Amino acid sequence: MSTRTIDLNADLGESFGAYTIGNDAAILDVVSSANVACGFHGGDPEVMASTFATAKKKGIAVGAHPGFPDLWGFGRRVMPFTPAQIERLIAYQIGAAQALARYAGHRIGHVKPHGALGNLTEQDPDVAQAIINAVRAVDPALPITAIALSHLERLGREQGMTIFSEIFADRAYTEDGKLVSRKEPGAVLHDPDFAADRIVRMVRANAVETRSGKMLPVQIDTICVHGDNEESVQIAQMVRSRLEENGIPLKALT
Amino acid sequence: MSTRTIDLNADLGESFGAYTIGNDAAILDVVSSANVACGFHGGDPEVMASTFATAKKKGIAVGAHPGFPDLWGFGRRVMPFTPAQIERLIAYQIGAAQALARYAGHRIGHVKPHGALGNLTEQDPDVAQAIINAVRAVDPALPITAIALSHLERLGREQGMTIFSEIFADRAYTEDGKLVSRKEPGAVLHDPDFAADRIVRMVRANAVETRSGKMLPVQIDTICVHGDNEESVQIAQMVRSRLEENGIPLKALT
Amino acid sequence: MSTRTIDLNADLGESFGAYTIGNDAAILDVVSSANVACGFHGGDPEVMASTFATAKKKGIAVGAHPGFPDLWGFGRRVMPFTPAQIERLIAYQIGAAQALARYAGHRIGHVKPHGALGNLTEQDPDVAQAIINAVRAVDPALPITAIALSHLERLGREQGMTIFSEIFADRAYTEDGKLVSRKEPGAVLHDPDFAADRIVRMVRANAVETRSGKMLPVQIDTICVHGDNEESVQIAQMVRSRLEENGIPLKALT
Amino acid sequence: MSTRTIDLNADLGESFGAYTIGNDAAILDVVSSANVACGFHGGDPEVMASTFATAKKKGIAVGAHPGFPDLWGFGRRVMPFTPAQIERLIAYQIGAAQALARYAGHRIGHVKPHGALGNLTEQDPDVAQAIINAVRAVDPALPITAIALSHLERLGREQGMTIFSEIFADRAYTEDGKLVSRKEPGAVLHDPDFAADRIVRMVRANAVETRSGKMLPVQIDTICVHGDNEESVQIAQMVRSRLEENGIPLKALT
Repeated sequence: MSTRTIDLNADLGESFGAYTIGNDAAILDVVSSANVACGFHGGDPEVMASTFATAKKKGIAVGAHPGFPDLWGFGRRVMPFTPAQIERLIAYQIGAAQALARYAGHRIGHVKPHGALGNLTEQDPDVAQAIINAVRAVDPALPITAIALSHLERLGREQGMTIFSEIFADRAYTEDGKLVSRKEPGAVLHDPDFAADRIVRMVRANAVETRSGKMLPVQIDTICVHGDNEESVQIAQMVRSRLEENGIPLKALT
Repeated sequence: MSTRTIDLNADLGESFGAYTIGNDAAILDVVSSANVACGFHGGDPEVMASTFATAKKKGIAVGAHPGFPDLWGFGRRVMPFTPAQIERLIAYQIGAAQALARYAGHRIGHVKPHGALGNLTEQDPDVAQAIINAVRAVDPALPITAIALSHLERLGREQGMTIFSEIFADRAYTEDGKLVSRKEPGAVLHDPDFAADRIVRMVRANAVETRSGKMLPVQIDTICVHGDNEESVQIAQMVRSRLEENGIPLKALT
Repeated sequence: MSTRTIDLNADLGESFGAYTIGNDAAILDVVSSANVACGFHGGDPEVMASTFATAKKKGIAVGAHPGFPDLWGFGRRVMPFTPAQIERLIAYQIGAAQALARYAGHRIGHVKPHGALGNLTEQDPDVAQAIINAVRAVDPALPITAIALSHLERLGREQGMTIFSEIFADRAYTEDGKLVSRKEPGAVLHDPDFAADRIVRMVRANAVETRSGKMLPVQIDTICVHGDNEESVQIAQMVRSRLEENGIPLKALT
Repeated sequence: MSTRTIDLNADLGESFGAYTIGNDAAILDVVSSANVACGFHGGDPEVMASTFATAKKKGIAVGAHPGFPDLWGFGRRVMPFTPAQIERLIAYQIGAAQALARYAGHRIGHVKPHGALGNLTEQDPDVAQAIINAVRAVDPALPITAIALSHLERLGREQGMTIFSEIFADRAYTEDGKLVSRKEPGAVLHDPDFAADRIVRMVRANAVETRSGKMLPVQIDTICVHGDNEESVQIAQMVRSRLEENGIPLKALT
């Protein structure tokens, strides 16, 4: 009898030179896969290589996590690039990550757009298409991690790409299944217990649970957790143990 | 009966945004292969993609041309990186170039270090080794273009890498076969006729011709020409026609 | 009897390291004042210092020409900064320019926003106000060069700042006195004779001449010319001689 | 009867966008003056403006803290610039800091070179002279904070500049009064008690205490403390209280 497994992913390798950000050491012990910054919104060749090496040693899958070329804004601002330019920005970063992963004895197993670029895939089908075009040009077999119900998920599936559908452990959902904007109150969950229980409900039902408790059917391949601060690490740990307690072990996607 | 052929290479794609440098259009009609900047000392994802696309259309082979991360100094300054850090800098740039070449329908056929990084391969065996390590980690079959008689050429051959040995059309050679430093008078040749005739002599003899006229036996796979200014383009054109007149046609290496 | 004089200004010092842009040497012999890039959209400390030194030697007035921090886009893209952040971006650049002007024996006599930042002053009063706030904070007596009829001109005058009102030698004007967008045909004038005659008409009438020939009364303190290409240098030269032939000599503002 | 007072300085404002470094809030409550990064090795216009504003509110004097343009290396690497280029790099940064200090209602009271640039002033008289040239060009009355016994201190005094001589609370001294290299064991002091007592001995004796306990007479105007980690903040607090207990109150220099 096959067991339902789930992937737990987090953004890592976002430090830059002497500037440390995130709690990579702690979160690497919780997740099954890591999205590694590619030097544009965060990360640098040193951080990338050592993050890939550590992930390899710990048996964690890795993906490229391309973002806008905006270290100052940490990739969280929508930068004025056309979809065609975004294709080149992403292809460049995927390639760089592939090479440094190989250098560290690992291999890139997926691509997940970062920050403002990721958010645009819920709102702008042209940006979603640009991401697909970039991945397909570099390696058509490379899976894309896409927010469940986003344009990226829909277009990628329609076009035969391998899509890993993603839900978020610490983010509230609107009634139509979109992430509640961080500008609204309640957008981010803070209670590890509530977050972990909600995730179990969502994974079991293959559905996104909205703020009102409605369940919207979606595919769920991976759960995004964060490692920015102590609270988010606690949520990640709680999500993992609650899933395991409920017979849903972690397993990276391939 | 097989014919002696030779590759003619030039550095291209070094423009950055609104900043144009070099005469890429003219030199692309002369050479058989192009070394394309990877966005660290010059170039950007837009320039890279369009350079790869143009080269593909014209049947020109392309290589990655990684340099120090120093746009301001155009990669001509020795930056304070350790050999281990240089490995990561180069692996990153090769990967980015591979991805954008694929995006443009082309493929990276070689790696050639740029500027100060290239010059160090004549002087510093540790930097030469770092370049080999980076290429081998990313793709052990990827050829490296190395200055004839440099540490990079010697170590690469010793370690079983594919090495393309390179001489320069417009640079004078010392009595022990090194490039005369640009700080010395006579380092750069300006007379297209003299330069072209010297190249024919060198290719025929498989030897580097020193300032005094001595011929030092070397392997010659490729000749570097420049496209920075009108004079260097003229030298490149003259080198090509003089070679062809002497029964040595151009052919990219594979 | 006092003579009507006029200032002729151009953007200069936009080169970066090995990357040369614009024909500074030619245009410096035509204008009476120069707007010097401050290292964010173009320029670098070396270029700034040598541009200030050359301008000083030639008796050309200089101003700070701050732009968005976007070397790749040459300051021509609207970057996602709030008006409050724009204040800090501009104050920083003015200060850097003041120090390097002093270093070169010159002094900053005005501030003119560059590229997308300058264009926003016609459309967005908050950006115009941010520029005023930045200049006032650094030095309330420092004049601002503002596009005639822009929010920057209006708000600056209302708030007691010294404003130099500017018209453009090679740009067409809409019927309400705005610059015709570069995306529209006819936005840029190419005929030096027409451009020079139009400028004389505008300066004499103290009015902007629209595409239909309507004259809209404005204050005219300075005329912007360009040095990007041969054509624009020719227009600049023609504008200067036509003005002088018509008894309107050049004189920098103070 | 006048009281011996002393200045306590620390490097601040080195964060960059989302990247936080140092414990500015804690250290601002300990020191009497702050050296504020200027956006080249650390800091950005936002961080600079808010650091100046906070320092103003707390009555802390501020200085410009220029470094090499090397965010990745945090200014700790010797970058390949000539002394003449260093002059321009420093003038640029001083000007930027002056403008943003004014914007925040404060004023730059001194200049102190950062990191590798500061270390060079002990070893390379040409770099020391470049710093003097830059400061003198921007404002000849602007004081320079110089490591006691460095070329910068000696040359600055010889040339009539205002020099604030500086000793370090947490660094060991060689027998000729230089800072023990960080590569050697014992270079950095870790015991707050020992460090604080040593500082009181040094200030009282106007002498640098070497590793062997020898006292080398120097001028002492200011003491450098650090806020990088908890230990260094503790040392800073202990130094301050031990000085005050010994009748040596803190007072910024003017």
